[in-house]
Amino acid sequence: MLIIGEKINSSRENIKKMVKERNRDYFQKLAREQVESGAQMLDINVGTFRKDEAEYMKWMVNTIQEVVNVPLCIDSANYLAIKEGLDAYNWKTGKPLINSVTCEEEKLRLILPLVKKYQCSVIALAMDDNGIPSESSGRIKILEELIKKFIKQDIPLENIYLDPLVLPVSSNIQNGNITLEVLRKIKESHPDIKTVMGLSNVSFGLPERRIVNQSFVVLAMASGLDAAILDSTDKVMTSLIRASNVLLGYDNYCLKYLEDFRNGKLYTG
Amino acid sequence: MLIIGEKINSSRENIKKMVKERNRDYFQKLAREQVESGAQMLDINVGTFRKDEAEYMKWMVNTIQEVVNVPLCIDSANYLAIKEGLDAYNWKTGKPLINSVTCEEEKLRLILPLVKKYQCSVIALAMDDNGIPSESSGRIKILEELIKKFIKQDIPLENIYLDPLVLPVSSNIQNGNITLEVLRKIKESHPDIKTVMGLSNVSFGLPERRIVNQSFVVLAMASGLDAAILDSTDKVMTSLIRASNVLLGYDNYCLKYLEDFRNGKLYTG
Repeated sequence: MLIIGEKINSSRENIKKMVKERNRDYFQKLAREQVESGAQMLDINVGTFRKDEAEYMKWMVNTIQEVVNVPLCIDSANYLAIKEGLDAYNWKTGKPLINSVTCEEEKLRLILPLVKKYQCSVIALAMDDNGIPSESSGRIKILEELIKKFIKQDIPLENIYLDPLVLPVSSNIQNGNITLEVLRKIKESHPDIKTVMGLSNVSFGLPERRIVNQSFVVLAMASGLDAAILDSTDKVMTSLIRASNVLLGYDNYCLKYLEDFRNGKLYTG
Repeated sequence: MLIIGEKINSSRENIKKMVKERNRDYFQKLAREQVESGAQMLDINVGTFRKDEAEYMKWMVNTIQEVVNVPLCIDSANYLAIKEGLDAYNWKTGKPLINSVTCEEEKLRLILPLVKKYQCSVIALAMDDNGIPSESSGRIKILEELIKKFIKQDIPLENIYLDPLVLPVSSNIQNGNITLEVLRKIKESHPDIKTVMGLSNVSFGLPERRIVNQSFVVLAMASGLDAAILDSTDKVMTSLIRASNVLLGYDNYCLKYLEDFRNGKLYTG
């Protein structure tokens, strides 16, 4: 499973402050730490700076790409910020991933041409102009519609990452199951299309959220999750993902797991 | 998910020694520790004492039932030891679980009458006179045959626990997937019949086996596992199971999880 580091996100107060200061050292260290701990891609979100978002996005993409050699996930609700991020992007670290489009007409009208022009990957969320359907059937319907639109625009299946979305289990005990069901059904009908998810929403309102997130990523892997946006510096979480990669048959001869063990990547104690 | 504590098993050298000494204090402490850490049933296995197994089983059942109030899993390959364990068993702590029968003719001929007579529960392993099928289809065929035999003998479905069995992933990287597939398919066809598994075999030959076992129990829960024989004193493992119970919708309003949090049952750090 692809691990996307979640930490460069200005919705956290401390990150916001550091962005404002354009603190290169801080973000380069944060990028390195995430990659060293297991992130294979980094999410970049500076969405709290509404009017300056595009400019900060450009700065952040440049800053991060100076020091790490993984692709970036350009995370914004703002067309201009995404475009600026893509323009600044150096492809030598691999294809960028736009995070995200929804099935909202305005979003699709703006973002799909970018996905097509830049031939990058894109995350598509299971929501439309009416919001997030509470049941799995509604989310699957939206994702199916999005797939059709992507195909119509000649976007290759390999560039599509579908996000089933997850709502907190503290507000409805079925919210975990609903998301897992969307994952299972979508992978059944479209084994070639990838799935992705942000984890942390599921545990909102509960104590020891890390444990809930750790459990959810493994449950989701069993249900067909291909990529997750998460805290890659959580060593228990990444250890469980590494072991799950073995158990789901993704790690031939357990070679990667054994290498991770030798390199001290597995938690102990 | 039902947690069955695995620790009272004489295949471990230290346990064997303590059984020989008939060390009541040691086993009563071990039983209490397992229940306090989350075991809702305790497995009792004294199988290394071939000729004295029945006598030790009786002693162990009495010893454990003096101090804990959970049902026991009478774990033996020996008809007499199982019978002696059941005769000694005090039903006030709940229905015992026989561990196990297979689809071997001799086993069924001896054990099924006990299951019927004592109206207890029974674990049925996916193996027959030819051993454990390497593919999921072979194991499912055996489990289906076992279900038919149980029904023919009027054994209620609620008393049946099917074990898909798991072989080490270190010997075949598909071994985890094979077991998860058996679980999924059996639960699809028989949602009323419970599933159970011993975890530790999956990680044989790998470093940091705990991490592999922790991941596997969560993957198996996503695939329909109802009960597992495991080390309940592994706090990370039981925390992940508690969180997975929430995420799979088994813990209404997260009440049990919140209670476990207040009682210090969740790992921190």
